[in-house]
Amino acid sequence: MSEKTDVIVVGAGLAGLTAARELVTAGLNVTVLEARSRVGGRTVNHDLGAGRVVEAGGQFVGPTQDHILGLAGELDVQTFPAYNDGASVYVRGDSARRFSGDIPPDLPALPDLGVAMHRINALARTVPVDKPWRADHARKWDGMTFESWLRGTTLTDGALDLVNVFLGSAYGGSAADASLLFSLWYIAGFGNETTPGTIDRGIGVTGGAQESRFIGGSQRISELMAEQLDGRVALDSPVRMIEQDAHGVRVTADSGVYRAARVIVAVPPALAARIAWHPLLPPEQDALFSRLAFGTLMKCEAVYPEPFWRADGLNGQGVFRADSPVCSMFDNTPPDGGPGVLMGFVGGAQWRKWANRAPRERRGAVLRQFAKVVGKDALRPIDYFEMDWTAEEWTRGGPTSVPGPGVLSTLGAWRDTPFGLVHWAGAEHADHWNGFMDGAVRSGRDTARAVLAQI
Amino acid sequence: MSEKTDVIVVGAGLAGLTAARELVTAGLNVTVLEARSRVGGRTVNHDLGAGRVVEAGGQFVGPTQDHILGLAGELDVQTFPAYNDGASVYVRGDSARRFSGDIPPDLPALPDLGVAMHRINALARTVPVDKPWRADHARKWDGMTFESWLRGTTLTDGALDLVNVFLGSAYGGSAADASLLFSLWYIAGFGNETTPGTIDRGIGVTGGAQESRFIGGSQRISELMAEQLDGRVALDSPVRMIEQDAHGVRVTADSGVYRAARVIVAVPPALAARIAWHPLLPPEQDALFSRLAFGTLMKCEAVYPEPFWRADGLNGQGVFRADSPVCSMFDNTPPDGGPGVLMGFVGGAQWRKWANRAPRERRGAVLRQFAKVVGKDALRPIDYFEMDWTAEEWTRGGPTSVPGPGVLSTLGAWRDTPFGLVHWAGAEHADHWNGFMDGAVRSGRDTARAVLAQI
Repeated sequence: MSEKTDVIVVGAGLAGLTAARELVTAGLNVTVLEARSRVGGRTVNHDLGAGRVVEAGGQFVGPTQDHILGLAGELDVQTFPAYNDGASVYVRGDSARRFSGDIPPDLPALPDLGVAMHRINALARTVPVDKPWRADHARKWDGMTFESWLRGTTLTDGALDLVNVFLGSAYGGSAADASLLFSLWYIAGFGNETTPGTIDRGIGVTGGAQESRFIGGSQRISELMAEQLDGRVALDSPVRMIEQDAHGVRVTADSGVYRAARVIVAVPPALAARIAWHPLLPPEQDALFSRLAFGTLMKCEAVYPEPFWRADGLNGQGVFRADSPVCSMFDNTPPDGGPGVLMGFVGGAQWRKWANRAPRERRGAVLRQFAKVVGKDALRPIDYFEMDWTAEEWTRGGPTSVPGPGVLSTLGAWRDTPFGLVHWAGAEHADHWNGFMDGAVRSGRDTARAVLAQI
Repeated sequence: MSEKTDVIVVGAGLAGLTAARELVTAGLNVTVLEARSRVGGRTVNHDLGAGRVVEAGGQFVGPTQDHILGLAGELDVQTFPAYNDGASVYVRGDSARRFSGDIPPDLPALPDLGVAMHRINALARTVPVDKPWRADHARKWDGMTFESWLRGTTLTDGALDLVNVFLGSAYGGSAADASLLFSLWYIAGFGNETTPGTIDRGIGVTGGAQESRFIGGSQRISELMAEQLDGRVALDSPVRMIEQDAHGVRVTADSGVYRAARVIVAVPPALAARIAWHPLLPPEQDALFSRLAFGTLMKCEAVYPEPFWRADGLNGQGVFRADSPVCSMFDNTPPDGGPGVLMGFVGGAQWRKWANRAPRERRGAVLRQFAKVVGKDALRPIDYFEMDWTAEEWTRGGPTSVPGPGVLSTLGAWRDTPFGLVHWAGAEHADHWNGFMDGAVRSGRDTARAVLAQI
């Protein structure tokens, strides 16, 4: 039995580490318990050799993501612009067409998409970011899928398909998976306290959520926080049971039993519900957490001697409509320009179709999509790797958790409600940039403050 | 370390016990591990004293539920007709109106409801009960909620509201929670191999799913199976971890470590996903099980010296539209006619509104609804009890698990897929009467046969 500490933080991702850092700064004794042998949660660097890395998890940041950018600044982690010089390519079946900007040149779909994006932004502005269940039409909007709304708003299938390209990576799913209310609220959060969210900012590169990357990789931020926490982070410590009474909390991990006055659980809600709780989680909170279904997402990355597409006037970005395993791709080359890396998302229904295929078959299908964007040289990478977040025991999905219809309006108020001496943090517990790195940092800070106010 | 047995069954509900019984009959060595101190899972008897019981869980059976009825017959458990003499009452706000049959007399809604039920039945007939993802419009029907379809099909809110009365108890939810595809498939299963399912059979009393009850209570069936299994059922044995390799399976429960050649996991899918699996559950199966969200349902029962409403020409049945905590109520009096028992379901959004209120406040609200049906004598019961299935650690919801949109069409095929040496059973693993006692028994039999074919 360890000595009793002030606060135990469960989970050493961005949210948990941010919370722990704030509490230590305030003078508290803190222990962080992390299930994995590493910190960073949904951010993880992949070693390319020669001191270079590329991310296999969350990686992009952009304007209004003040919290992750501010934290990185404090830790002296610099950003660089995601490569965006030259043309993107829009792939539809076997046709490939160059374009510039964030909206692919699908002429029949463009008017529909324009109207849909305009209406999405207008409706999103009416959703209270802190209490979406109080939106004027909350009940009705939560009773339909985002897909139903898009089908009803548009005249062709184009807008729905193109929104699904975005949601393939953003939800690890599609407009069929989420309610209209959740989707409007999620988009309303693509901003900060002074700048309203828009779908444009979510899908954009320059000026949008894919604008920048971190030198040294996003996981570096968590690694530096863990270094500052100097011995307070226990790795290989999956938490199995959390017991509490009026006097404190007892946390049973594989590495031992820990006691604290308060606990912050900073793991994905679905995994929080899998801990053995005594007393049980309140039924409403269990019902909510078990309805926050993790998206299904895999990142596939191919490495080449150099980013050969740049000389052809291509920025390495691709948007794939229709039955492509990859929904979108990016130039993921390190900041010094070598080696060349292409990264594609396989998400949602396409993940569900491809995740179980033979790796060789999937690799071939992904590279063939890459080749439609940058040419047949894409078919011969010097390295290829995949990160299937659904196969990660301590995440089990990616990139975030998306409730279906009927959840947010009836159970959403339970999201951040402390359970006795236990508080919640994580990317899913943020009002702005929910599911993003910025949301995770915001939630870590907010929860640390809530705990400080109680302790 | 126990000796290795042929098959371990996890869960002593109807499915697990049925499977164990079949396997023992076939000559195998079987151990059943049950988390609770009782058998029966989602069926449980409440003792009324003097040898009488009433059910606090699953209780009704009806035509085409051949498997549960056949099993009960083998065990010499008899049925009796649910009380259905006299008028039902339709409550809307403060108005209460007597009616006969299963369709409440909401005149503005009746044409809409009739058309909707006709179309539901016609569409349900086109859904393959064994492979709903192969329905002609599977993708589109899975991309919308049942609510969206009802809003599009009907002219008033009446049909949606009245379908939600049924789903309040059937889903522990509403038409907002489930996809159209799941709902059509679920209704298509209200039959057997020769009789197609209809929504009429699902909502009906005489001739429908609420036609009969079991003398001695539905839990008696599980208790008798456990007696026949004579020492093979280990109670108080929550299973925490399941490990397997090519040679067998190792199951770690609170009561010890068990080894077997095969395992049948017969617990709700969401709870199966909470077990620690080594190797991990396949991501697709984890994604599916964690998307089978348990409904939120409570049963509230009031006991009176006698069923006083019968003398007033009332059958004790009520249908409540609009903002009532109770969606439907039944005369739940024991077969010998005393004491009188009224039972009401608080489900779905109403559960989410009422579950967290003070018990006294909720009791008052429930009894006031009962009083609208049978008069003010309902306000003074001699006993009142509730069973909130969401608060049960080893169920965590009721009555069954309902996937939202986008799940069945993309992940449904993983429902029954064995995971190495581990097979699945339970009410959620049946094609006919999914989520009902009959589905549980069907699935227990089917899975036992699948295991016998392998062993």
